[in-house]
Amino acid sequence: MSDPRFFSRSGPFSLREVAAAVDGSLQDGADGDRVIADVAPLDGAGSDDLSFLDNRKYIAAFEASRAGFCLVAAEFAARAPAGMTVIVCEQPYLAFALAARKFYPQAAPEPWISPDARIDREAELGADCRVEAFAVIGAGARIGARCHIEAGATLGAGVILGDDCRVGSGASLLCCIVGSRVAIDPGARIGTQGFGFAVGPRGPVRIPHTGRVVIEDDVEIGANTTIDRGTTGDTFIGRGTMIDNQVQIAHNVQIGRGCILAGQAGLAGSSQMGDYAMIGGKSGLANHVKLGKGARVGAQSGVVDDLEAGGTYLGAPAIPIKDFWRQQIAIRRLVSRGKGA
Amino acid sequence: MSDPRFFSRSGPFSLREVAAAVDGSLQDGADGDRVIADVAPLDGAGSDDLSFLDNRKYIAAFEASRAGFCLVAAEFAARAPAGMTVIVCEQPYLAFALAARKFYPQAAPEPWISPDARIDREAELGADCRVEAFAVIGAGARIGARCHIEAGATLGAGVILGDDCRVGSGASLLCCIVGSRVAIDPGARIGTQGFGFAVGPRGPVRIPHTGRVVIEDDVEIGANTTIDRGTTGDTFIGRGTMIDNQVQIAHNVQIGRGCILAGQAGLAGSSQMGDYAMIGGKSGLANHVKLGKGARVGAQSGVVDDLEAGGTYLGAPAIPIKDFWRQQIAIRRLVSRGKGA
Amino acid sequence: MSDPRFFSRSGPFSLREVAAAVDGSLQDGADGDRVIADVAPLDGAGSDDLSFLDNRKYIAAFEASRAGFCLVAAEFAARAPAGMTVIVCEQPYLAFALAARKFYPQAAPEPWISPDARIDREAELGADCRVEAFAVIGAGARIGARCHIEAGATLGAGVILGDDCRVGSGASLLCCIVGSRVAIDPGARIGTQGFGFAVGPRGPVRIPHTGRVVIEDDVEIGANTTIDRGTTGDTFIGRGTMIDNQVQIAHNVQIGRGCILAGQAGLAGSSQMGDYAMIGGKSGLANHVKLGKGARVGAQSGVVDDLEAGGTYLGAPAIPIKDFWRQQIAIRRLVSRGKGA
Repeated sequence: MSDPRFFSRSGPFSLREVAAAVDGSLQDGADGDRVIADVAPLDGAGSDDLSFLDNRKYIAAFEASRAGFCLVAAEFAARAPAGMTVIVCEQPYLAFALAARKFYPQAAPEPWISPDARIDREAELGADCRVEAFAVIGAGARIGARCHIEAGATLGAGVILGDDCRVGSGASLLCCIVGSRVAIDPGARIGTQGFGFAVGPRGPVRIPHTGRVVIEDDVEIGANTTIDRGTTGDTFIGRGTMIDNQVQIAHNVQIGRGCILAGQAGLAGSSQMGDYAMIGGKSGLANHVKLGKGARVGAQSGVVDDLEAGGTYLGAPAIPIKDFWRQQIAIRRLVSRGKGA
Repeated sequence: MSDPRFFSRSGPFSLREVAAAVDGSLQDGADGDRVIADVAPLDGAGSDDLSFLDNRKYIAAFEASRAGFCLVAAEFAARAPAGMTVIVCEQPYLAFALAARKFYPQAAPEPWISPDARIDREAELGADCRVEAFAVIGAGARIGARCHIEAGATLGAGVILGDDCRVGSGASLLCCIVGSRVAIDPGARIGTQGFGFAVGPRGPVRIPHTGRVVIEDDVEIGANTTIDRGTTGDTFIGRGTMIDNQVQIAHNVQIGRGCILAGQAGLAGSSQMGDYAMIGGKSGLANHVKLGKGARVGAQSGVVDDLEAGGTYLGAPAIPIKDFWRQQIAIRRLVSRGKGA
Repeated sequence: MSDPRFFSRSGPFSLREVAAAVDGSLQDGADGDRVIADVAPLDGAGSDDLSFLDNRKYIAAFEASRAGFCLVAAEFAARAPAGMTVIVCEQPYLAFALAARKFYPQAAPEPWISPDARIDREAELGADCRVEAFAVIGAGARIGARCHIEAGATLGAGVILGDDCRVGSGASLLCCIVGSRVAIDPGARIGTQGFGFAVGPRGPVRIPHTGRVVIEDDVEIGANTTIDRGTTGDTFIGRGTMIDNQVQIAHNVQIGRGCILAGQAGLAGSSQMGDYAMIGGKSGLANHVKLGKGARVGAQSGVVDDLEAGGTYLGAPAIPIKDFWRQQIAIRRLVSRGKGA
């Protein structure tokens, strides 16, 4: 399925190998020696491909699929069409992720330092890095092993990166300390000065931003996302947090571990997200507000007060999701009553 | 009017030539040999300039204008001030676009391959391309004729571009197949991996994104816009679609032909826009929702369910625009009643 | 407090010097010869550090702080903990900005023209500029004195910059005239073509954008912000205006002096902001609307009609903030009544 111009595939693998890799089980009589060539969506998969069913919405597509192999929960296994061999698993989507990683493993970059990269004499690079053309690495920067710095990325003086990081083309890193296995997509801007000034009698007075951005291990940062450094003190992003494209994170924001920030979300200065909290696309946190641990905020919401851990919220201002829908219903009723009158 | 530092003008052209180019008609007694030097807005135009009136709101400006020539609908022609010669046309704004293109034609770039560009030996470039300093073109890339790759743009391995494309400064293209006459503005990121992972017992598991971005002919993509590639399968943008700045398009989104996406709009994973659909600035489509053919969604709206073809919608969640305004009125009444009580 | 990898500090300074610099006064018996080493937040400051109290919310932190020195309004001076010396001032946050600038003065860049920058023979550079690797400056560009063009920034043909400007890494400037002391953060795109086309029988017809972007002195432009040039005529940004990250400013927008635009705000074509107006994060102005002088629009609002000078507005559509909260209360009441029924 994948275009060989862009991707190289591993395998093929036997049904038995794949089932083991995804912690799935085969049904009686399945031939574990059969060969799987690739992963594919239900509607595009062929007889050598592995697909998955994770959502009731797609049962019809599952029943019509020509996939030779499919990851599926036990309750749907019996509905597989003729010619499909199922691998039963508890979390088919997670299993699919694991299978896809088997066919398309994330390889370490081929080590290479382009003669067109400009690396300061006082920068340190770990073993087996790849630094592409027109990348710039400043004095005192310390880059770990197997990092991949793509074309035109700029790492300012003193920046620290752990091992196995990727910095996308054209990204800018300043005043930041980054852990290992961090992926930064093209065009991200990290460590820029915050939007901070005091208003004086002759207009705004810029406040020097002398803080940093600290990013823990296993974080992902999307394309064209911006993360300002702290005014004093650090902007902080905890381990395993996933940040989508075009997210804006202001000075001194504190994000816990394992958080999820969808596209075009925005966090104003000094706002906080507890561990495993989640905010939807285009949502915002106001200055200094705190989103509790594991709280979830829907898309296009605006958080203007602290919100409790574990809750689910929606709207601008964001309120508990049940209240949001109650309001919507009440407004609709109000309109129909108005019509009747 | 235009600054010669930045733009070079063609012409001058005779009134007759311009009227023909815009499919307009002259009034009795107009001297078709008179000369028009430039296009300009109503309030800045002089006696050699051509302006236009397209909106009733600007009739006063039209009546006060010193423009020597003006594109105008028949119904307003009689209100032209003394000294103004009108060209009567059905769609004055469209006529203005055509006239402006006559004075400022889009020239093919001057062919040049900068010695500071890095083009892989295994990339193919068509005739008469312009590739500026610090651009990078990867192995197996195939670029059509007369393409203009601006300074610092990066085209990854295998990327395909048709003829007459422009890739703006600092843009990044990966894993994409692009048609002809496609304009990509500076800082756009195309083909980055999608925001997709499965949540496992030890945190999120990244799903490899082995799809592509497919962009048909005559598409425009604004500055700092981001378009992720498909998880498996393609993210697709149909012919003639216009995308403004800072739009976010997630993995596997399907956009039809002739669509319009205004600034800072966001389309979540696998959402769809039918042909000629339109979404306003800062609007969003949720995962998997489908906006019907020719449907229009106003600014700052949130589409959370499929919306029918041809309708006009507003609000978050987006509803038919009449219902949105009815709700606004009902809420306002509710407040005034509350005051009275 | 600040990380010496990234920042170099001036000083130390005597208490007397600092008090003079911030226009503050010492209390009776204070020893003006004592030495202050750095600025720091209340909870991180030590005995040699200067902090500030600007918000009642932080009085507890103030009373618990170990800061040796603190900027504070007269009314709170008596609540300073033992061991803290206060500098009394009218606007502690403004005073802190001034103090921080004393410890971390904005230095002119070290003059240097990288041999890896590509500067057109017909461009002019003022004295003492710094132009880093892979920057590109086009023909006819005129750059003032002491400008700092960071790595990979691109300045197109004819662009004009005043003195003491900074253009961040990877930013793109086209068709623009920029004043002095303007700071442009990494990845900003200025002078790109606007999103303008007329709809004809065979689809959209691109309108050539032959205007410019004009930016006055002392403006700041955030990372990955985009500013389109005018269709005809100029997009204009007045003196001292502060623009945050990921703001979108369309063709022909007119922004007055001293305005503030928070992150991810968006201004549609030909919209206007009067002097000292302010719009919150993620807020939008529709085409052609005018926000009056000194008006303030809260976060995530949508301005669809002209709004009067001096007012404060919230919501989408934006209404006077009192009305917004009245509506919220009315809706909440409606829901609770609905429950009772």
